[in-house]
Amino acid sequence: MVQFAMHPVGHIRSPYTDTSQVPKGLGAQHTMEGVLEVLPEFEKALQDIEGFSHLYILWVFDRSAGCELVGRTPADDRPHGVFATRSPRRPNPIGLSLVELVRRDGCSLHLRGVDMLDGTPVLDIKPCTSGIEAEKLRRGWLADVEARAGR
Amino acid sequence: MVQFAMHPVGHIRSPYTDTSQVPKGLGAQHTMEGVLEVLPEFEKALQDIEGFSHLYILWVFDRSAGCELVGRTPADDRPHGVFATRSPRRPNPIGLSLVELVRRDGCSLHLRGVDMLDGTPVLDIKPCTSGIEAEKLRRGWLADVEARAGR
Repeated sequence: MVQFAMHPVGHIRSPYTDTSQVPKGLGAQHTMEGVLEVLPEFEKALQDIEGFSHLYILWVFDRSAGCELVGRTPADDRPHGVFATRSPRRPNPIGLSLVELVRRDGCSLHLRGVDMLDGTPVLDIKPCTSGIEAEKLRRGWLADVEARAGR
Repeated sequence: MVQFAMHPVGHIRSPYTDTSQVPKGLGAQHTMEGVLEVLPEFEKALQDIEGFSHLYILWVFDRSAGCELVGRTPADDRPHGVFATRSPRRPNPIGLSLVELVRRDGCSLHLRGVDMLDGTPVLDIKPCTSGIEAEKLRRGWLADVEARAGR
């Protein structure tokens, strides 16, 4: 089987030490602050990052067990395919978070909106340079659940 | 060194066979259509994906050579850190594209906005459920270049 080996470029310092502490489900807001400590050998790769307000963080669900192709999420009691959810139990355990960059201090990126556990390995950082307007997004089963919940 | 092994869950069929064909640089628009062929063993993971208009595709720059911590991009003649760009020459060669889901046909996801080469291995698919409003985004060096170019 073809495989690609990925390695950490840094780690998250977050107040969350257990997944039960991370807000989940319908209307969950991520406003928690945390720090992405980039490994010193990658400091140069951060040049000019402070000009961006929002970053995509790609990280590893390193404490998630296995993969479930169809499963339930905290937002809905009906099962959905894992590619239609943000479930941690994915074929490749990669997480994606869009966070706000509060400030940079050397190798430390201070972030708002972290939903990762303390110690989470980070694979990549990318600037967010555009967005989709909310009114152009169709949100599938999530919109259905919200409508049933009267949101 | 800690490593994480990732494997393809599908591949991109795209009109692009060489990176020189992919629109790049200031104001590049991605409107090309392509198909993500999900491997049959992952078809169940697609359940309910057709309700979403936009998907994040995580993929591998499998034809990119090496890593450059600071480098130039087609958008600017000044160098920037790789974490402040979408350069393919990253510590972990992962690409991230936000594409429109035109339709699903079994294991085939018909997409608009592909910027990957034909045959690109895909690692993950996630629904886009929210966006950042354009006026809330600070876009760093990219906004500087656009201002200088009179855009």
